[in-house]
Order: sequence, then C-alpha cells, then structure tokens
Amino acid sequence: MASSDFKVSISEQSVAEVEKTFSPSLQHGADLRFHGVVRDQEDDKIITGIDYSCYQDMAAAELQKIVDQMQSEHPDHLAHIHHRIGFVAAGDASILIRVQTAHSQAAFDLSREYLRRIKQTVPIWKKPIFA
Amino acid sequence: MASSDFKVSISEQSVAEVEKTFSPSLQHGADLRFHGVVRDQEDDKIITGIDYSCYQDMAAAELQKIVDQMQSEHPDHLAHIHHRIGFVAAGDASILIRVQTAHSQAAFDLSREYLRRIKQTVPIWKKPIFA
Repeated sequence: MASSDFKVSISEQSVAEVEKTFSPSLQHGADLRFHGVVRDQEDDKIITGIDYSCYQDMAAAELQKIVDQMQSEHPDHLAHIHHRIGFVAAGDASILIRVQTAHSQAAFDLSREYLRRIKQTVPIWKKPIFA
Repeated sequence: MASSDFKVSISEQSVAEVEKTFSPSLQHGADLRFHGVVRDQEDDKIITGIDYSCYQDMAAAELQKIVDQMQSEHPDHLAHIHHRIGFVAAGDASILIRVQTAHSQAAFDLSREYLRRIKQTVPIWKKPIFA
C-alpha cells in the first residue's frame, strides 16, 4: 500500500474543502469521516470560535508519526487526517479524520483510536475567542 | 429537540449531494459520517455497481422506526440517514449515516448501532451488476 494513501495536513483550509479532494476507493466498503466541530461555548461562556495555532512542522511530524504507527499496526486501511489552524468559527470543523476499511467495524475502531492518539500527543493550541 | 433534526431519506440522490444540504450545529462537537461504499467485487467477480431497490414507503417507515427508537433511547443526538436507490457505481456510497453528539465517544457508539439496526431490518434489495 502506497504511503501516499496515508495523508496528513495542517492548514487554514476548511474540512469541506479538503473533503472535495477525496477520491473514491473500490476496495473499501467503509469510509468513515469524523468531524470535530467547534462548539459555541467554553467554560459556560459564549464564544464565536477558536483560534488554533502550532509549530506546524512539529505538529505535522507528530501527526505523521501517529499515522505511520497506525499503518504498521493495521496495514489494511487508508487514512487522511486534516487539522485546521487559524480562526475556526463555532459550527465549523477543526479536525477531520477519514478512515477507509474493507468493513465497517474496523473503521469505527481505527477512527476512535486515531482521535485518542491525536488528542494525547499532537501539540496544537486552542485560544477561545469570546463573543 | 425537534423531530426535524432526525431525518430519513431514500432516493436516487447521491450521498455527496445530500451532504451539501447539511447545516452545522453549535452544540454538537462530534459530527460523524459513515459512508457505506459499493466495492468492485461480489463473490470474487468484478462488478460495475449495485442496483438497489425497495418498496420505498415500507423501507422509509422501517428507517423512521429505527430513528424514532434511537431518538427515544438517546435523546441527546441528531441523526440523518440516507439510503440511495437505483444503480450505484462501485466506489460510490449507497448509504450515509450522520450522527451528531456533544462528545465523540457517543457518536461512534450510536453510528455503529444505527448501522447494525439498519442492516438487520430495513428491506432494501441489492442486485450486483457484473462487468
């Protein structure tokens, strides 16, 4: 499986724009897309959105490490992780985790595991913008 | 929660077109979209796609029943289920299950449960079209 099937991106591009670039697969019956969406509250205060920032090379390297590990542990899937940076308005997605597998069960398991690892180690900072 | 937040559709409309109609939510941090994709093989033979058919009222009623039950069991989520009918080419999605929840864990659990119930009871027939 080509490593180009495992993609990582960190940019100001919206999740909707990134999804437009997705190509279909004829071998994977499950295509699961987790969107992590900015909510309009933080600590019970209304916010207009969240400003995300990071050292891009460092965050991308950490994301890539997760993807490489997952690929070696579970070779039979494809994945694309996109994290948006800059201001993300409430209601918009800040992260997209796309996992493609032959069958549905594995897609749910792998997507959840990607999310767990990303939350644990990827250094991206959040600054809530209060209304 | 308005019942209009729980939507069921069965039509020839593609999953991509249905997704374009989705509106964001400010209260739900997880927006999980399961795409069930037609693969290019059936019983080890190459297919160009699958022709889906159903008695539309009957299938829609069954889908609605699942959604109503899930809504009463788990009131804190939103869901939209779309099943495509007619010819669906290999690589295209025949079903979309969208689940929105406050937190990610519930989204994975509910999406998986929707899929399980739909596979069990919704009467939609599949006719593979061999290449």
